[in-house]
Amino acid sequence: MMFPKDFLFGVSMSGFQFEMGNPQDAEEVDLNTDWYVWVRDIGNIVNGVVSGDLPENGSWYWKQYGKVHQLAADFGMDVIRIGTEWSRIFPVSTQSVEYGSPDMLEKLDKLANQKAVSHYRKIMEDIKAKGLKLFVNLYHFTLPIWLHDPIAVHKGEKTDKIGWISDATPIEFAKYAEYMAWKFADIVDMWASMNEPHVVSQLGYFAINAGFPPSYFNPSWYIKSLENEAKAHNLSYDAIKKYTNNPVGVIYSFTWYDTVNKDDKESFENAMDLTNWRFIDMVKDKTDYIGVNYYTRAVIDRLPTTIDFGEFKMNWYTLRGYGYSCEEGGFSLSGRPASEFGWEIYPEGLYNILIHVYNRYKKDIYVTENGIADSKDKYRSLFIISHLYAIEKALNEGIPIKGYLHWSIIDNFEWAKGYSKRFGLAYTDLSTKKYIPRPSMYIFREIIKDKSIDKFKGYDPYNLMKF
Amino acid sequence: MMFPKDFLFGVSMSGFQFEMGNPQDAEEVDLNTDWYVWVRDIGNIVNGVVSGDLPENGSWYWKQYGKVHQLAADFGMDVIRIGTEWSRIFPVSTQSVEYGSPDMLEKLDKLANQKAVSHYRKIMEDIKAKGLKLFVNLYHFTLPIWLHDPIAVHKGEKTDKIGWISDATPIEFAKYAEYMAWKFADIVDMWASMNEPHVVSQLGYFAINAGFPPSYFNPSWYIKSLENEAKAHNLSYDAIKKYTNNPVGVIYSFTWYDTVNKDDKESFENAMDLTNWRFIDMVKDKTDYIGVNYYTRAVIDRLPTTIDFGEFKMNWYTLRGYGYSCEEGGFSLSGRPASEFGWEIYPEGLYNILIHVYNRYKKDIYVTENGIADSKDKYRSLFIISHLYAIEKALNEGIPIKGYLHWSIIDNFEWAKGYSKRFGLAYTDLSTKKYIPRPSMYIFREIIKDKSIDKFKGYDPYNLMKF
Amino acid sequence: MMFPKDFLFGVSMSGFQFEMGNPQDAEEVDLNTDWYVWVRDIGNIVNGVVSGDLPENGSWYWKQYGKVHQLAADFGMDVIRIGTEWSRIFPVSTQSVEYGSPDMLEKLDKLANQKAVSHYRKIMEDIKAKGLKLFVNLYHFTLPIWLHDPIAVHKGEKTDKIGWISDATPIEFAKYAEYMAWKFADIVDMWASMNEPHVVSQLGYFAINAGFPPSYFNPSWYIKSLENEAKAHNLSYDAIKKYTNNPVGVIYSFTWYDTVNKDDKESFENAMDLTNWRFIDMVKDKTDYIGVNYYTRAVIDRLPTTIDFGEFKMNWYTLRGYGYSCEEGGFSLSGRPASEFGWEIYPEGLYNILIHVYNRYKKDIYVTENGIADSKDKYRSLFIISHLYAIEKALNEGIPIKGYLHWSIIDNFEWAKGYSKRFGLAYTDLSTKKYIPRPSMYIFREIIKDKSIDKFKGYDPYNLMKF
Amino acid sequence: MMFPKDFLFGVSMSGFQFEMGNPQDAEEVDLNTDWYVWVRDIGNIVNGVVSGDLPENGSWYWKQYGKVHQLAADFGMDVIRIGTEWSRIFPVSTQSVEYGSPDMLEKLDKLANQKAVSHYRKIMEDIKAKGLKLFVNLYHFTLPIWLHDPIAVHKGEKTDKIGWISDATPIEFAKYAEYMAWKFADIVDMWASMNEPHVVSQLGYFAINAGFPPSYFNPSWYIKSLENEAKAHNLSYDAIKKYTNNPVGVIYSFTWYDTVNKDDKESFENAMDLTNWRFIDMVKDKTDYIGVNYYTRAVIDRLPTTIDFGEFKMNWYTLRGYGYSCEEGGFSLSGRPASEFGWEIYPEGLYNILIHVYNRYKKDIYVTENGIADSKDKYRSLFIISHLYAIEKALNEGIPIKGYLHWSIIDNFEWAKGYSKRFGLAYTDLSTKKYIPRPSMYIFREIIKDKSIDKFKGYDPYNLMKF
Repeated sequence: MMFPKDFLFGVSMSGFQFEMGNPQDAEEVDLNTDWYVWVRDIGNIVNGVVSGDLPENGSWYWKQYGKVHQLAADFGMDVIRIGTEWSRIFPVSTQSVEYGSPDMLEKLDKLANQKAVSHYRKIMEDIKAKGLKLFVNLYHFTLPIWLHDPIAVHKGEKTDKIGWISDATPIEFAKYAEYMAWKFADIVDMWASMNEPHVVSQLGYFAINAGFPPSYFNPSWYIKSLENEAKAHNLSYDAIKKYTNNPVGVIYSFTWYDTVNKDDKESFENAMDLTNWRFIDMVKDKTDYIGVNYYTRAVIDRLPTTIDFGEFKMNWYTLRGYGYSCEEGGFSLSGRPASEFGWEIYPEGLYNILIHVYNRYKKDIYVTENGIADSKDKYRSLFIISHLYAIEKALNEGIPIKGYLHWSIIDNFEWAKGYSKRFGLAYTDLSTKKYIPRPSMYIFREIIKDKSIDKFKGYDPYNLMKF
Repeated sequence: MMFPKDFLFGVSMSGFQFEMGNPQDAEEVDLNTDWYVWVRDIGNIVNGVVSGDLPENGSWYWKQYGKVHQLAADFGMDVIRIGTEWSRIFPVSTQSVEYGSPDMLEKLDKLANQKAVSHYRKIMEDIKAKGLKLFVNLYHFTLPIWLHDPIAVHKGEKTDKIGWISDATPIEFAKYAEYMAWKFADIVDMWASMNEPHVVSQLGYFAINAGFPPSYFNPSWYIKSLENEAKAHNLSYDAIKKYTNNPVGVIYSFTWYDTVNKDDKESFENAMDLTNWRFIDMVKDKTDYIGVNYYTRAVIDRLPTTIDFGEFKMNWYTLRGYGYSCEEGGFSLSGRPASEFGWEIYPEGLYNILIHVYNRYKKDIYVTENGIADSKDKYRSLFIISHLYAIEKALNEGIPIKGYLHWSIIDNFEWAKGYSKRFGLAYTDLSTKKYIPRPSMYIFREIIKDKSIDKFKGYDPYNLMKF
Repeated sequence: MMFPKDFLFGVSMSGFQFEMGNPQDAEEVDLNTDWYVWVRDIGNIVNGVVSGDLPENGSWYWKQYGKVHQLAADFGMDVIRIGTEWSRIFPVSTQSVEYGSPDMLEKLDKLANQKAVSHYRKIMEDIKAKGLKLFVNLYHFTLPIWLHDPIAVHKGEKTDKIGWISDATPIEFAKYAEYMAWKFADIVDMWASMNEPHVVSQLGYFAINAGFPPSYFNPSWYIKSLENEAKAHNLSYDAIKKYTNNPVGVIYSFTWYDTVNKDDKESFENAMDLTNWRFIDMVKDKTDYIGVNYYTRAVIDRLPTTIDFGEFKMNWYTLRGYGYSCEEGGFSLSGRPASEFGWEIYPEGLYNILIHVYNRYKKDIYVTENGIADSKDKYRSLFIISHLYAIEKALNEGIPIKGYLHWSIIDNFEWAKGYSKRFGLAYTDLSTKKYIPRPSMYIFREIIKDKSIDKFKGYDPYNLMKF
Repeated sequence: MMFPKDFLFGVSMSGFQFEMGNPQDAEEVDLNTDWYVWVRDIGNIVNGVVSGDLPENGSWYWKQYGKVHQLAADFGMDVIRIGTEWSRIFPVSTQSVEYGSPDMLEKLDKLANQKAVSHYRKIMEDIKAKGLKLFVNLYHFTLPIWLHDPIAVHKGEKTDKIGWISDATPIEFAKYAEYMAWKFADIVDMWASMNEPHVVSQLGYFAINAGFPPSYFNPSWYIKSLENEAKAHNLSYDAIKKYTNNPVGVIYSFTWYDTVNKDDKESFENAMDLTNWRFIDMVKDKTDYIGVNYYTRAVIDRLPTTIDFGEFKMNWYTLRGYGYSCEEGGFSLSGRPASEFGWEIYPEGLYNILIHVYNRYKKDIYVTENGIADSKDKYRSLFIISHLYAIEKALNEGIPIKGYLHWSIIDNFEWAKGYSKRFGLAYTDLSTKKYIPRPSMYIFREIIKDKSIDKFKGYDPYNLMKF
């Protein structure tokens, strides 16, 4: 089978994880995000909450974007997704500007860092010049520090900078979004407001062991932040749509849930509702497409008693040994290989999510992230093939999937794990800043060229495509 | 070689980890400690910070102390160390009583829970009735909740109940200690003020990943709490000594440090000073003996740059794969077996600590804890033999070691790890509350009977006694 | 429950595996067995078929028997089983002496090595002098080289010395047995003709990868040798019985079989018939008791087609990961620990065998071997307890089990594996020839003293006694 | 760096391992080799000496050669090496034909199976038709059964069919070789007499645990067979050269030796002499090139005493955990990944061998085999890149290496291991007989296209190219 003619193959990136690379360049290093502060906090480092790796030693997309775009072009890709950094555009607070006032944009324009604005335009123009479509996402985990002091929140210290807990944050985000649309509507092909809001909320306020800011357990804030992110998206959708007819959407990390007992619909529905549907339900009327990020599943079972957290209840828990909870570089209890992140390779989950997302929302879908931490490139080719197989299967059932954006083209700063998790199609030498395509990148090129995975179909050493 | 005639063999216990066993018994369940609150906090449980096991399902020493004492007597032991729970004696605040006032004890006596006082007396009398010496320790990790609200501190919420950070706490402790001495000086053979103060401080405020309350990173508080514990000890020493001539001391968990580079004296001294000597130096003039708890070593290496935490500096870090940082049930990178806690069996470290502690302080020493989480009893016999070998070696060099108290006689609630770590010479069936001696307990009896480990000396499958 | 008053606890040994220890002592080193030749064959060593360890560096029972007997007495044992070496008694062929002739014994007496005869008497007298019962077995794997040239047979070279394939061998064995009875009937309490004849046949001629002589695949010879061993036993039974009323029997290694499919009776019966019943059926009328050696089970499944080997058919094969086929020092696929030999701990199998053996033959039973290669003594205590539990259970059902002889009291030469497999209750230092009881030996003493395992019953970390 | 313009990239195959695929086709199934008999011997199967897999269920090159050749052409290869089966050409003995007689070829022609002759011609013509060079090897492990009865030899039974031990065998081989040259000199581009003669000898008569026929330990025969193979080669060289000027050579599996002690030249030289140089020295004047097969190294250490085997001495032994002796699918003790065969990836060894072979013999070299059992394709791309790096390095030092022939293009019957070891660039589905290129095959194509590995050079996750 061939993928549709207009199906887009490409890669996704973000700002913070890719841009920096030269610690000496004051203009390049963006000190103004919560994550920048978070990853160098000595308490976080001493306790192994973060890796100690620093983003300014990274892959240097800010400088070498041309090389990265060329790589994408050389390997036949159709689209690149980038992230813009709110804190680069607005290093200082925009709260003084009245939202919706006639001169809002002019005032914002004065507050904006015009060097950053023009640098992003150069990046975008280079993407277009290389014949690639431009997919821009406005928010990817990092909040400006004028909105979020993650250490103060973590320590329970009094602060106004409480990030997504603050009702002001959605308004500020809408200003930023409208400003970006005003500046870049002429060049951007696809817009996304934000990436994986649920991850920000869940790892920030509920399952706080992943090293995400502010790692402050508070189930109410988990929900509150999710609601404010939804509000921010909805405002931004209307704001962007003033300037463009191009699609505007949201990118969400969906987890597929398998239950220990097949008939355990209660656990399944509770998990799907809380972690997948709750947010999307809030934004479903203000999105042209849904961006699906998919990495692996979770296997869950019923709790002996349902826990009431006030804003939500939970009747399930996650089993170790499957999905996100495997031994790093080992195998899941189902015998599937696990990535160097300990994430089980489970393409069925992507298929299931695509079906469920479409059936519930009837929207176009982009697979906006999918990839594997695999520094040895042992599984990446098969990972790509088997997840494209899941997409092909869903396409065959009529699901309108418009593209596949692999995470990612080069290695990146993987948040709390730093540079130890290597997601790049191309290996990144952090000392020389060279990008060297791994073998799997040539396989991806082969697939893009064919617009098909047919010739790989019989080769499936882990039976990943037997579903 | 024979151990000295008056060398004492026995076991150590604490209150919180052993007493409870019947969740329905309102009198028995002690709700009034920070740990009781801590281990059932839903945030702690959701995030795996604590096990979810609850102390009220424990080994039931409060009720079955007679069986435990009989076991000790049957196996030839000389001494039992117990811990009394501050919060049982004083379930409500003693701050209203002026410290040092003439009627202090009478007022405290009114505040005290007399049922608890008389129950502890029954326990103590039974120990003595069975011909065992009575070793009493007054503080073992658990603070009354009227002194410490661990969740509030953890969340950074405003509270006066800040535990050892408060300068009031040493005073309250001195009241408690004096009250205990007044009540029990007639029966107690050896007194200890407190157990492992450094663990409370380090895991509470610095290396906060072990699940100890309040798990709030603050290097200043790490030092502050240590100083207040020292002050508390010193006050309590004088207080107890008013009522007894028996020895009064402090129990401390010493870690031995091996450096990656043999000549790395800077790391060694920095680590020894901070984690071993700093506290003991503060109390050395107010202690009749030093209680040495020893489990394993740490292997350390130099940091590229020394970190200045204000109150102290650190120039070293701990390597994974040795000492406390091994795979659970695996082997250290030196090829030594590791316990089910992931703690390397390393008796050399005990020998080294005994030599260094004596040379620095010239005090009598009791080995007040030494044991292994080994539910399968695969290593416990050898663990005991090899650590007694270390003691024998130190005795041969003239170090005045007065006894060996194994941790422990029955399985116990192992703090954040709950019931998964089994330290008992006797297996404890938590459903029937039966105590069944493991094979190693018969080996311990054999050694006690002989007052010698000579007949085991050639048998050393891991070469633990080749030092 | 108590074991019966007259139940015998003790240990089993053999000649070849225990006797030698001084390579310089020409009288002690017995060069005249097939195994002596086999284990030093350069081809066997180069190819790892044998370990390269040599029996003359062994545990030195020949010299130190007194120490070994004292150990047994000190630990409360009732009985010792020893093996006598045919090749020591008759270093040269006895074929010139007519079997059954009136002067057979006198002629044999002239051929016999009288030094060996009298040394064995000293050994036996010492056993009795220490208050122990004397159990003597006449043949334990080793054939005189005048009857078996294992290298010639292995290489397919022409030779008359074909061991148990020769019809002359049973006759020669009967001469040896009668001579021994004539010499030692006054002192021996229990007699056995031979140990594990099926092992000799199976590993010699069928499953030839275990490094046993002659390792020559020939299914007919597998059966032929078994038949000749049965004939040898039957002749020897009559011969010995002329001189004694004490029990005379045979010692056999029984394997219990679990089938993958519960209802697979065909596999079960085929396996039981071939490897357990076939031999015993041939000797059942000439045995006063059956000696049961038990180490572990096998898990089997049906072959797609039954293989016809002429003298027998096989419809089953053995699965790896269970029974004798586990990873050394690992765990079986049932989660049971495996010994350093890779043998699963499976006491249920002993119970099952005892029931099946008794129901089929209605004979008294001695458990004549049971033990574990466990140099670290991690499992031996539990191994003993759980297998005695199996015996207790069978006793409760009325099976007349007369004793339990552990293999073994000291470490021994474990055939092709040499000294790497340590079966001793006491560790044997091969350089100093010292015997040092492992912890489990004290547990065995405890059990013998109590004649009960009751006090260990609740302690069962691997749930071995849950059947 | 670019490989030389005339450097040949391709693949190697043999007859027996690739040809058969249809058990029902009487013409296709070649019953007439020692290996055909060997792998179905029930004793070999029962004892796990061979896998039980049968060659007639194989990859079916005999029928599908066109598909295989097309695959090679599609992936840009320059050359294919095939093996012809002596037993197909001469299913009956050629001993009646006088060697060197004027009518020898005519007589041989009558004995030859003309169907096989013409089928091989079709295969060869197809290779040439697809623009590939044709490399033909005449002997690859399998002897006609009229020359070798492997079971009889294995069992030590009397037989004339003693394979390479017979002095007649070289003569018969020379007849076969001359006949082949007479028939195919017009089409063959490169000739080899035989593949890995030392493997045949070593695994047949010395290190006999690998399941190779006849697995009969006899150090003299090890040397004798080697000498007869050399004689056979020398005769065949002259015979073939009568009909062609194209290069004629021999293919040899070289092992590189690292010694535990760097200065241990004695072990190194003894090992190199015995296993590498001894044979090549015998044929060095009759070979136009040397075919180097390389898989991995061995790590060796000195024996305490040198063993004298008569025809040769050995002063070394091989350590487990390195080279050919690693855990299957694990890692070597040097931290290198090991293949599913347990063979360490060690490209340095290829470089070292190329240098040493050239320095000693000053001949052209083809790398005639190099590959990895890797069903999951986890390492194959890197394996190819890193071994080509070794070749590039040797080329840079002036070593005249003419080509690289990967083992192999499709999966094959891996002798005693059957189909469990997967060496194919293309996965072979044994039920459908489809060939599906694994990802690494596309990487090989990429390299061939570039005639360079430069673009992969920075990507080296195991540091295989850091030598």
